[in-house]
Amino acid sequence: MEARKIFLKEDEIPRQWYNILADIRLNPPLKPDGTPVLPEDLAPVFPMNLIEQEVSTERWIDIPEDVLDVLRIWRPAPLVRARSLEKALGTPARIYFKNESVSPPGSHKPNTAVPQAYYNKVFGIERLTTETGAGQWGSALSFACAQFGIRCKVYMVRVSFDQKPYRKSMMETWGGNCVASPSMETRAGRDALEKNPDTPGSLGTAISEAIEAAVADETGKTRYSLGSVLNHVMLHQTIIGLEAKKQFEMIGDYPDIVIGCAGGGSNFAGLAFPFVHDKINGRPIEIYPVEPTACPTLTKAPFVYDYGDTAGYTPLLPMHSLGHAFVPPPLHAGGLRYHGMAPTVSQIVAEGLATPRSVTQLDAYQAGILLARTEGIIPAPETTHALACVVDEARKAREEGKEKTIVFTWSGHGLLDLGAYDRYLSGMLSNFALSEDEIAQSEEIFRDYPKPEHLKSC
Amino acid sequence: MEARKIFLKEDEIPRQWYNILADIRLNPPLKPDGTPVLPEDLAPVFPMNLIEQEVSTERWIDIPEDVLDVLRIWRPAPLVRARSLEKALGTPARIYFKNESVSPPGSHKPNTAVPQAYYNKVFGIERLTTETGAGQWGSALSFACAQFGIRCKVYMVRVSFDQKPYRKSMMETWGGNCVASPSMETRAGRDALEKNPDTPGSLGTAISEAIEAAVADETGKTRYSLGSVLNHVMLHQTIIGLEAKKQFEMIGDYPDIVIGCAGGGSNFAGLAFPFVHDKINGRPIEIYPVEPTACPTLTKAPFVYDYGDTAGYTPLLPMHSLGHAFVPPPLHAGGLRYHGMAPTVSQIVAEGLATPRSVTQLDAYQAGILLARTEGIIPAPETTHALACVVDEARKAREEGKEKTIVFTWSGHGLLDLGAYDRYLSGMLSNFALSEDEIAQSEEIFRDYPKPEHLKSC
Repeated sequence: MEARKIFLKEDEIPRQWYNILADIRLNPPLKPDGTPVLPEDLAPVFPMNLIEQEVSTERWIDIPEDVLDVLRIWRPAPLVRARSLEKALGTPARIYFKNESVSPPGSHKPNTAVPQAYYNKVFGIERLTTETGAGQWGSALSFACAQFGIRCKVYMVRVSFDQKPYRKSMMETWGGNCVASPSMETRAGRDALEKNPDTPGSLGTAISEAIEAAVADETGKTRYSLGSVLNHVMLHQTIIGLEAKKQFEMIGDYPDIVIGCAGGGSNFAGLAFPFVHDKINGRPIEIYPVEPTACPTLTKAPFVYDYGDTAGYTPLLPMHSLGHAFVPPPLHAGGLRYHGMAPTVSQIVAEGLATPRSVTQLDAYQAGILLARTEGIIPAPETTHALACVVDEARKAREEGKEKTIVFTWSGHGLLDLGAYDRYLSGMLSNFALSEDEIAQSEEIFRDYPKPEHLKSC
Repeated sequence: MEARKIFLKEDEIPRQWYNILADIRLNPPLKPDGTPVLPEDLAPVFPMNLIEQEVSTERWIDIPEDVLDVLRIWRPAPLVRARSLEKALGTPARIYFKNESVSPPGSHKPNTAVPQAYYNKVFGIERLTTETGAGQWGSALSFACAQFGIRCKVYMVRVSFDQKPYRKSMMETWGGNCVASPSMETRAGRDALEKNPDTPGSLGTAISEAIEAAVADETGKTRYSLGSVLNHVMLHQTIIGLEAKKQFEMIGDYPDIVIGCAGGGSNFAGLAFPFVHDKINGRPIEIYPVEPTACPTLTKAPFVYDYGDTAGYTPLLPMHSLGHAFVPPPLHAGGLRYHGMAPTVSQIVAEGLATPRSVTQLDAYQAGILLARTEGIIPAPETTHALACVVDEARKAREEGKEKTIVFTWSGHGLLDLGAYDRYLSGMLSNFALSEDEIAQSEEIFRDYPKPEHLKSC
């Protein structure tokens, strides 16, 4: 009987994160006036130790012992050989996944929530604010804050807050405090409600609220925490790919294809960046970030400078963006409903190091059901987007008769998203796609913004 | 840094289950006329290979390779050292738990769902029927049936069906079919609805419905499956304790105290029976099954012959029972709301090999919150009952200054029970306790039933 799971021991968890900024160049974040953002500009928002990580170009950065100790609640995560899926598809491909759903909050998000809570604690911060869409990130940060004894305040996008009341209960079980966004607690929230009292909210607005609430604390003991997009978030997530590489080494295999769903980019980056490093060094690998056709940041939107939030509190970031005012269709994969994309992920796509793909909501759920019935785990709606791409590649391998090795991240489980499965199984879900007109309209926004330079790392 | 988790490799999973019937004697199951039930009497309900297991007295029974292969989707389960809890309690006790929440359905239940689906498949059965209370068992059987390509029909107790719609979605994502019980599909269901159209349902009635539906299939290709109580279910669950013993061996420790929550008994038995074997052979161990004060089967109810279901379709079983017509208070721990207790568990309690404990709902949730904030995992409402007992024993160890080793099962996670946490945190939950009158009333029922013999194994 061949093993299903390739396990590392706890003492085999990587001791350093991989920083892709050692291998690629990024356009700098800018202020609205077009001048570069300096570390001290970010000090009211983030603790200085994390700002230093954000701008570091060291290739390897040590993971603090206290962070490793908490990660070991669920890590190392198994690398799973998806034999039942392979059999169901009759493919010669070897399919593997990193099972990131095994963390207590149920996704890859605590990989960065834990170090972020730790660095804030060390810096003397007593309270973190953040936003959350589907709720995975808010849950992860509440969990992490409980581990380090700091308080956590979460602004949750209204539509998800109403659809998924269990996410709020989860955060509060860990001691977090969660309110619907837009709220009346911040100016950004009140403005949004004044414009549209019935707004379903958006990640952009929730980010604005959380930043405002952090900066407004006069004691100076509150900071803001972001669950994706930023360089230090991608850095923390590389533990996924670094573990995977160790696990592939153990079994003497190596991927031809690397796949991850991409909303803000952190799940994809976590698995992919260590392999991007190898690709830059000459190894031939296909790398696919997968997004929904309903929010086609990498596949359709331009590479521009744009704000990370709706109110424009963040710096201008060089990224693929549908425009910071873009409100994505009511897709169930809340984690993929973001107008922008991590600058690092945007950059590797701009350089051709990764090739974005998009899939429809129905294809995603169809793949999700197939995986639930073969590999057993019910995937998060976000994860199903990667699965649709995996199924596609496995079928291609069958048609070509090629023994390819495919690896993807199982970014989270769908146990708090079962209502969406219910609607899919009852035939109540449909596809969304943006028209060329809508895309062109969003491009219009950027006409007067600074333009990112065309950079090439390799 | 000391390890948090003690992992076995996949090829170290035990290859045999431990059968406690080699070590203790049971009163036989009886027909209503008082004569013993014969294997052939059970043939319309269960496949003969499982009936043989039910009555076997072989100490070790091989786990089929195809069963092991599916168990390896999540097993071996980690044995976790609960250092953060120990620290929070300031106890000298070493506290460990088997984390059974890591299975795709989120509890220990698939440990028996998988072999039951397998044995039915091998016997040529194409469809299984079952009941479920909180939904853990129905989910587990739907998951297992998907693995072996057989159909699954679940009768879910009405009150839980309404409170936890996600459980139905979960079962249907795995291809199962779930209806509320009482339903109009069976005579037992129609009778219950006729008596009380607004009945919240009970496990006893749902069992009656599932048995009736299995027996009614004229093709002979349907059987019934039970998630607790029966000997073969306890047998399959012993993989928990057998793995734990291997893990303790690896670290050179051994428990002084073994704790598990007990509804029908399978979670408790799974961890405890392999240690009961050692206790019978002279090893001093305290063994505590923990139940809610609201459904005090082992701590308050008599050891009698009673039916496993409300309609009286099952044989009379020798067990601690509050009476098959007993409807427990609307406790959130649905898996502990059962009028009876596994005959094997009842027998070891009758012999003094285990000492039952009971805890209130509020103490249980308080312990659940503490564990969520220290060890990170949000426990199922059932599991919190064991946790309250663990916290109690850890405090005792502190008072006595004793370095005891405690082990318990984390029987499941509470991610589909977060509504209950919400109510606890909002102060909306209360305790339930039965009066002596209510207990006496339930004893009245058994006056004319056969009486179990007083047996002593050791």
